[in-house]
Amino acid sequence: MIYFDNASTTKIYDEVADFVCKHSKEQFFNPSGLYAPALEVTRQINDARQSLLKFLNANNHKILFTASATEANNFALRCFLQKNKKILVSQGEHSCVFETANYLISQGFEVEFVKLLNNGTLDLDDLENKLDENVGLVSCIHVSNETGAINDVKSISKLVKQHSPQAIFHCDGVQAFCKIPVNVSDCGIDLYTISSHKIHGPRGVGALVINKNLHPKPLIFGGGQEFGLRSGTENSSAILGFTMAAKKMQENLKSNMAHVQDLKTLLIEQIQSLNPTINGSKNSSPNILSLSFDGVKGEILVHMLEQEQIYVSTGSSCNSKHSGNRVLVAMGKNKQQEAGNLRISFCEFNTKEEVLSFAHSLSECVKKIQGLDIWKK
Amino acid sequence: MIYFDNASTTKIYDEVADFVCKHSKEQFFNPSGLYAPALEVTRQINDARQSLLKFLNANNHKILFTASATEANNFALRCFLQKNKKILVSQGEHSCVFETANYLISQGFEVEFVKLLNNGTLDLDDLENKLDENVGLVSCIHVSNETGAINDVKSISKLVKQHSPQAIFHCDGVQAFCKIPVNVSDCGIDLYTISSHKIHGPRGVGALVINKNLHPKPLIFGGGQEFGLRSGTENSSAILGFTMAAKKMQENLKSNMAHVQDLKTLLIEQIQSLNPTINGSKNSSPNILSLSFDGVKGEILVHMLEQEQIYVSTGSSCNSKHSGNRVLVAMGKNKQQEAGNLRISFCEFNTKEEVLSFAHSLSECVKKIQGLDIWKK
Repeated sequence: MIYFDNASTTKIYDEVADFVCKHSKEQFFNPSGLYAPALEVTRQINDARQSLLKFLNANNHKILFTASATEANNFALRCFLQKNKKILVSQGEHSCVFETANYLISQGFEVEFVKLLNNGTLDLDDLENKLDENVGLVSCIHVSNETGAINDVKSISKLVKQHSPQAIFHCDGVQAFCKIPVNVSDCGIDLYTISSHKIHGPRGVGALVINKNLHPKPLIFGGGQEFGLRSGTENSSAILGFTMAAKKMQENLKSNMAHVQDLKTLLIEQIQSLNPTINGSKNSSPNILSLSFDGVKGEILVHMLEQEQIYVSTGSSCNSKHSGNRVLVAMGKNKQQEAGNLRISFCEFNTKEEVLSFAHSLSECVKKIQGLDIWKK
Repeated sequence: MIYFDNASTTKIYDEVADFVCKHSKEQFFNPSGLYAPALEVTRQINDARQSLLKFLNANNHKILFTASATEANNFALRCFLQKNKKILVSQGEHSCVFETANYLISQGFEVEFVKLLNNGTLDLDDLENKLDENVGLVSCIHVSNETGAINDVKSISKLVKQHSPQAIFHCDGVQAFCKIPVNVSDCGIDLYTISSHKIHGPRGVGALVINKNLHPKPLIFGGGQEFGLRSGTENSSAILGFTMAAKKMQENLKSNMAHVQDLKTLLIEQIQSLNPTINGSKNSSPNILSLSFDGVKGEILVHMLEQEQIYVSTGSSCNSKHSGNRVLVAMGKNKQQEAGNLRISFCEFNTKEEVLSFAHSLSECVKKIQGLDIWKK
């Protein structure tokens, strides 16, 4: 098996899965219990918060654990709403921000979508034009889940604070955290979303990093867990597994980055003769490569490659239920490039041998399809 | 260790924890992927839905997986709202229904709380008085998490359908599912909430059983997972672990019920000389026993007992952040009985030896405290 769909989900680290298993058997206590073993789990969860904040260089923030990054992004957009204030959302956002924005529009809120440049990053001129004193929240993805394009969140934050001093700046960091260096405080980020299953942690846990000066409303009501903001018995073992995975990835951040960059560079070299269009800039995340080939549908490639136990995607998994790829359209791609999109996403487990084998299979598939098309003409 | 706080959370079955661990390592694929191993996980999840529906005897329903019963109860109250329709909620609900009801009141919805009888069950006369054609939703807990009182949900459902034919009937079954027989279809239940970690399944997964004729709005927006109603990458391994635990509990339902009933009966016998007040009726769930002793604070008992590694609670964990016990107050208990509440909750792992040892320790503690009080006088 060659698994190149790591932007969709990652294989959990063996030691993290084993830890989660052991912890769930031995320290299963409800953190809301009044007795010592329950309080011990609460202590572990609070330690996990501190670790994650440290990894993110978030100095004036707290961590809200959720069941997913999707929930964290819903929280970010829906729980800090200010009356009569406009919301700005980039056109390059993940579905969970984009669809939440659409929901807010249906509820009467004013939402504007900020354009993308051809390379997939936010159009800072368009942002500057849209920013004013009536803007209450700006949401921009850190690393695009579609193309790997890296937004200059520090510059974006500066523009936001300059033109809309009261606005909250939210950043979806799911594809950035533990993949590239992240400095929440230095970048002036108020809200930052992270996910466990994208960094070899357990499924079912995400988090929102929240500037301590902000006072959101709850999204889920009940027992008052998570500072009264997100009720439900804490998913203790998964929270600790998340933090354990983050720790390992942070320790190996530089070498992992160099490794996946090597794989990406090698792959681009190996398929040069197929004349791929690279969607996004060359300075995108080393983990993600978004490609299109002339006259080749991405979905057909995915199915041809899976015959050889090679797993890639046509883009965001969370967009697989929708037709088309609105992020590529926002980048100015034409219909053919949009339908031709193939997203390859690496992790530390991938090898050069896998890349060479993949490049060979991909070439065969592309040639086969392009040959068929020529034959049809 | 003697763990008698199983209404708060249960120890995961070893084989379920091992299965979740193995599955998360081997079948980590995102169910939204377009390739075969991802589709296989989707198939497994859909099989899990069918199994749970069967265990619940829910014939015209579908299963919506959530991160918790709290989320499922929030969904039940917030996603089926009908304009200008009243909501009836019992006074015996779990915090996540009660606080969601309070949230709805703050949003301008009309909510009425239906009284409890002294034994902790719903006051059917009060319900009947409050039901009319303007009622859109009725929410009543199946088995009380505080006292174990079992509501006659079939009779409640009949009253609802008779007086409020358009009303949806929601039932929080967290403390009932896999503990007593449940027949969702026969009882005319439209929405039924269940939780994994209360039945020796993994943390981080719950579900709402939904009548197929109903068409709710989403609670969490994004990639459109779970029929477009609850976005976020599916917590696949935990969902399958939940179903595995439910299967085991369903298979042993009768013998488990008899076993915990024996433990409960034995405990009541053993502490007879302490003159406990049993909060709730004798016909309550075999798993839960709610007690008060004259002049003894429940919280002090919990802390004395934990010195001997005996773990019980003063009531719902999800109420441990609030002062007082509103369910006991609604049952007409006085301040002293309310503060004196001790909740003992059993599971199949508990033994008669544990009960005898517990009864001994409890007696010592109660006498000590009562002695101190006398000495003070």
